[in-house]
Amino acid sequence: MRIAIDCMGGDVGLSVTVPASIKFANDYSDVDIILVGIEPLIKSAINLINGVPLSRIHIVNTDEVVAMDDSVDIALRRKKKSSMHIAVQQVKDGNADACISAGNTGAWMAISRYTLKTLDGIDRPAIAASLPTNDGRSTTMLDLGANVDCSAKNLLQFSIMGTALLQAVEYIQNPSIGLLNVGSEVIKGNEIVKEASNLLLSSPLNFYGNVEGHDIFNGTVNIVVCDGFVGNIVLKSAEGIAKMFSGAVREEFRRNYFSMITGFISSPVLKRLKNRLDNRRYNGASLLGLRGIVFKSHGSADIKSFYFALQRSREAIINNLLERTIDKLYQINQLLRSAKN
Amino acid sequence: MRIAIDCMGGDVGLSVTVPASIKFANDYSDVDIILVGIEPLIKSAINLINGVPLSRIHIVNTDEVVAMDDSVDIALRRKKKSSMHIAVQQVKDGNADACISAGNTGAWMAISRYTLKTLDGIDRPAIAASLPTNDGRSTTMLDLGANVDCSAKNLLQFSIMGTALLQAVEYIQNPSIGLLNVGSEVIKGNEIVKEASNLLLSSPLNFYGNVEGHDIFNGTVNIVVCDGFVGNIVLKSAEGIAKMFSGAVREEFRRNYFSMITGFISSPVLKRLKNRLDNRRYNGASLLGLRGIVFKSHGSADIKSFYFALQRSREAIINNLLERTIDKLYQINQLLRSAKN
Repeated sequence: MRIAIDCMGGDVGLSVTVPASIKFANDYSDVDIILVGIEPLIKSAINLINGVPLSRIHIVNTDEVVAMDDSVDIALRRKKKSSMHIAVQQVKDGNADACISAGNTGAWMAISRYTLKTLDGIDRPAIAASLPTNDGRSTTMLDLGANVDCSAKNLLQFSIMGTALLQAVEYIQNPSIGLLNVGSEVIKGNEIVKEASNLLLSSPLNFYGNVEGHDIFNGTVNIVVCDGFVGNIVLKSAEGIAKMFSGAVREEFRRNYFSMITGFISSPVLKRLKNRLDNRRYNGASLLGLRGIVFKSHGSADIKSFYFALQRSREAIINNLLERTIDKLYQINQLLRSAKN
Repeated sequence: MRIAIDCMGGDVGLSVTVPASIKFANDYSDVDIILVGIEPLIKSAINLINGVPLSRIHIVNTDEVVAMDDSVDIALRRKKKSSMHIAVQQVKDGNADACISAGNTGAWMAISRYTLKTLDGIDRPAIAASLPTNDGRSTTMLDLGANVDCSAKNLLQFSIMGTALLQAVEYIQNPSIGLLNVGSEVIKGNEIVKEASNLLLSSPLNFYGNVEGHDIFNGTVNIVVCDGFVGNIVLKSAEGIAKMFSGAVREEFRRNYFSMITGFISSPVLKRLKNRLDNRRYNGASLLGLRGIVFKSHGSADIKSFYFALQRSREAIINNLLERTIDKLYQINQLLRSAKN
């Protein structure tokens, strides 16, 4: 099993991606790692680490790097030898079973789609990620920003891709699906969501029905499906609120000497709280619907967090994410076709 | 100044609305209160309270009540003598300067719109509310669910209404406006938002540009404008996350004897944290764009929280929310017309 890693992507790049990948290769002896990036820099990063399993570490040199603020167009068309392009190309050429980057999301999606193309029966790829829930588990949400406008058929396809993902990565056999919608108090429902609801009801997927914003964090369903406009805004709002809360906790426990002392006494509790609300273990978004397994790490990921994303990539390979998606797509398209006839 | 209160609305109804209104009347001697609802029940609730300023408390009896789960259609057409209808009618008839309910949002909006109609130049009313920010201030967001599909023109009108609201209720002379959109990494922007952006750029409003989900809680702008589908989902997601966080803090400080002891020692800090994150002081959504001042309290509001919503209603009356909205609308429509010629 081989995973190609864009070592140059992310807010810090090599000092996160290389140590995380080496640790990962040490922990999982069934994995070979292809480090893609500027070779001398990768080698320097490796040299800082003890106990590197060199026989399973391969380096592919590139000269170009996509910057975090490069436009999609520049990344896709002007930097054709970037570490992103070459990492995806490893999957395309059959040298790797999956690839991952912590770089610019739009560029990574565009390059992956351009290089790998979408699966038969998928009109548009989507970005899926996990969000934490009240009960300590997680809800997978898609699309998180690949598609601003979606049709009902797109939402059905996202549901299929999400189901295959959870079967492969979280071992949930028949994950429940909720369509993100507004409360019943709203005068007029969203037409696309209504149509998608009908499509889902006539599919063999485990469709729960409509869900509302708070259901994402209540764990009402395993998968929440929405268009990328709403998904992206909800994801970023959630990150904003999480930051506000943890900032408030930190500030209040540092406000004066008394607070600092109680903070010190409470440190085991505060540490547990921090671990519980730590979103690093949810790192690793999937770019679904492509002819290859592509993962995306958060740009601000640290070593631990990037490691989690590598684990998810490995699970996806072992549990045949692609074949599962293709099978589900075939099965549902057959059903929809026979329903039409 | 007179405020009509639907005493029957909300998760608990009279035991919140009546004490909050009486306290409010006691604190603000310039306000008369019209309590609308089932008279014997209102009287019983009043009898439980000492020091009621009876000369400024008026009761209007009704026999019908809109339930929290009544459909909009039933509330609007089958319960024409509900406390909601009669409370809004007080504004329509000039007996009250504003009205408020903690009941079913959809019903309250439908009844208010049906009774009062929209202002000239407003195609659709909107729901606006404040969300807390990192720096302890707040961002006003609209629409929060009155309109699922919005045109660019609707979004411009929401911006005008939001500006007038913040001038009247928060004394911000030239509030900044952000259009909620997705990150630059997304392949295709939302067409309606792009068009709204152009309209706003050519208006005299203080338009900041596009903002993303996290900007709502960073306080990047004073007003965030979006359609009611996105707004409602973001609001409910935010409530869900807030609940998850406060639940996690509570649970971790109660996990075992040690946690409970540290929780006890930290109680002044935890209390300050709770106050800081207390969203009750943001209670009081505005139903904007109607020919009358209409407020909506959260259904789960307690006495303190409902009192805050009454305060906002009073500010709106004192600072001529309606006239401000009408003036701004006229001014901007003139400009848009002359730009066309």
